[in-house]
Amino acid sequence: MYQLSETAKQIKRSVMRDLMALAVSPDILSLAGGLPANDCLPADELKACFERILQRDGYRALQYGPQYLPLREWLAAHMGRRGVSCKPENIFITNGAQHSLAILSRLFADPGDSAVIESVTFTGVQQVTLGRRLEVRTVPTNLVSGVDVQALEQAFGKQPKPKFAILIPNFHNPLGVSIALEKREKIIALASEYDIPIIEDDPYSLLRFEGKAIPYLRALDDGQHVLYIGSFSKMLAPAMRLGWIVAPDELGNRITVLRESLDLESSQITQRAAAEFLTSGYLDGHLAKLNNTNLQRKNVLMASLQQHFAPLGAKWTTPEGGLFCWVTLPDHYDTWELFEAAVAQKVAYIPGGAFAVEGGYNNTMRFNFSNATEANIREAVSRLAQVIQEQKPA
Amino acid sequence: MYQLSETAKQIKRSVMRDLMALAVSPDILSLAGGLPANDCLPADELKACFERILQRDGYRALQYGPQYLPLREWLAAHMGRRGVSCKPENIFITNGAQHSLAILSRLFADPGDSAVIESVTFTGVQQVTLGRRLEVRTVPTNLVSGVDVQALEQAFGKQPKPKFAILIPNFHNPLGVSIALEKREKIIALASEYDIPIIEDDPYSLLRFEGKAIPYLRALDDGQHVLYIGSFSKMLAPAMRLGWIVAPDELGNRITVLRESLDLESSQITQRAAAEFLTSGYLDGHLAKLNNTNLQRKNVLMASLQQHFAPLGAKWTTPEGGLFCWVTLPDHYDTWELFEAAVAQKVAYIPGGAFAVEGGYNNTMRFNFSNATEANIREAVSRLAQVIQEQKPA
Repeated sequence: MYQLSETAKQIKRSVMRDLMALAVSPDILSLAGGLPANDCLPADELKACFERILQRDGYRALQYGPQYLPLREWLAAHMGRRGVSCKPENIFITNGAQHSLAILSRLFADPGDSAVIESVTFTGVQQVTLGRRLEVRTVPTNLVSGVDVQALEQAFGKQPKPKFAILIPNFHNPLGVSIALEKREKIIALASEYDIPIIEDDPYSLLRFEGKAIPYLRALDDGQHVLYIGSFSKMLAPAMRLGWIVAPDELGNRITVLRESLDLESSQITQRAAAEFLTSGYLDGHLAKLNNTNLQRKNVLMASLQQHFAPLGAKWTTPEGGLFCWVTLPDHYDTWELFEAAVAQKVAYIPGGAFAVEGGYNNTMRFNFSNATEANIREAVSRLAQVIQEQKPA
Repeated sequence: MYQLSETAKQIKRSVMRDLMALAVSPDILSLAGGLPANDCLPADELKACFERILQRDGYRALQYGPQYLPLREWLAAHMGRRGVSCKPENIFITNGAQHSLAILSRLFADPGDSAVIESVTFTGVQQVTLGRRLEVRTVPTNLVSGVDVQALEQAFGKQPKPKFAILIPNFHNPLGVSIALEKREKIIALASEYDIPIIEDDPYSLLRFEGKAIPYLRALDDGQHVLYIGSFSKMLAPAMRLGWIVAPDELGNRITVLRESLDLESSQITQRAAAEFLTSGYLDGHLAKLNNTNLQRKNVLMASLQQHFAPLGAKWTTPEGGLFCWVTLPDHYDTWELFEAAVAQKVAYIPGGAFAVEGGYNNTMRFNFSNATEANIREAVSRLAQVIQEQKPA
């Protein structure tokens, strides 16, 4: 029998994956996933891009190679349009946001060090801190204005000093909320005062379908306190397995070597296809279609919740973008218990407790609205309300 | 200023990458790289495969998804043909051998634990153990029969017990040697006796151009002591960024969760394109062409060494496959010092010391013969011999 490391033992089995495995049967109306809409993935454009680069670049698309400069150039210009002044050399290509988190957590923290994350956060953030065996300090998140800045300051001030904080400022997963501008300014001031790096995990900001863009944390910073993480998984396609880090000059070499030790480099094929997509001008049309679809689905979800969940005393967040909505039932409900009854009625969601770093939040649930049809969203919410009503609280 | 973790500080800057950066100028005759031949990459077939899967699979090729079953099935059958009985569920898809090493090292060892590696080995192996802050125990490698089995037993027997060993049994990088069959049998016996997992790092075995295949370590084992790592980087194309681990049933879940924490999953696009390539029957023809080219180039290298290096008192390994040949000059030469003079004469190699975990080997060099034309190999070896002759030993 093989003996596992403590590291391997401490990484929790992904509850979410287990739950989703229950929810994949095709007759289940699922609001459980975190997928962009199947029917909005730019299949034709990407097919054309792969064909073009494999035709044009020949062996260069198939070999080892340095990070693809046109992709870094496009991303540097993109970040510039979003108020982040940086050069192509500051763009470090990774295999997505999770990969970026794994790299940056290793850059700043050793096992046993402390890190600050939100009490309710994406399970991948938890996996990174658990997998690195970090002492985790959590801060709660307000469902309208984002992370609790006072709690953040307390977490920053405690000894030992945390090595970094991870925040998801835009269309938070699972909460759907964004951090308000005035809080962002305060966060940057705290990062500077306490000299603690903020990892800005931002897979969703381009998925805004309503309201006005809020400046990135990195755009409010001088580049000395915020490491920005972007991802192509939601804005383009998950299977590109590409993301990027905006890092200051002095960290570039270390990130390169650290990443090499993990998996050498990103694919020239997918890097070039992504660059082809972006420089061909396909992104704006794709995002318009994607976000319009997401908006319609979000509106249907909101109307359905108003009709079926409001009478139950539930509350929910009102996302202006992204993929997720967070529902809070009255205290006495238990969404873990409800899950089984829901699946029996062929409808699925993720119990909010799956995202709770230190437990609790057992009366909450996450809904994904991007990858279900409007009719299915209506039907799923209606069925779920019935399941909840029948499962009278103890 | 950002404060780096001890982990980040301990990962050495890749000397090899620095050296290769000096050797990329197009007028340099380089035997420095580790690349499969540009002109042997199956560009047309892969282009057809990407087109077919993007046409056929639509959004499924672009979404998140489970490891692609037809790829796992093909690989399980492939391993079966090589004497390794396993099911598709035992095949775990990764982003290449480096990624597999990063995952397995985390599965078995925590920082401070011991691990056994060869004294001269691929720099990526060193990066993994350094990046994990492991106490490294090295064993020398015989240039004809592979790793020193007596030294391996000594390393296994020392306390604290090593958590794993990494060996490169076929066409070793950088040495070009393979482990003899009788040694392989002894190694399996030792792994069993000392209960230490062997990580069999095998990116090269399908690149045999001469001689008879030697059974994998994993084929001699009951699956309880050897974790086999394969890679598509050399047998297909580096930019696929795909590899695989053959793991026993009981480790599958842990590997899945560990890998999720690092970078979630491998690309559906590249997984499906690789499966399409393999199931379309393109592999045999591709390998025949690739290995024939490599053989011709190896033969030219051997003849050139005989002509120009034998008079200098040099010795070299005679690879039956793979990409590399290892040259040992008489003791008093220093291949680090020679490197600058060589580059000035527009010819490059990697000083063997770059692969020496604990230093030394300063009179050695690694030649790559796969990615240079026959004419360039002849000219490079001739020029290098002249550089060496002019750089009279002190």
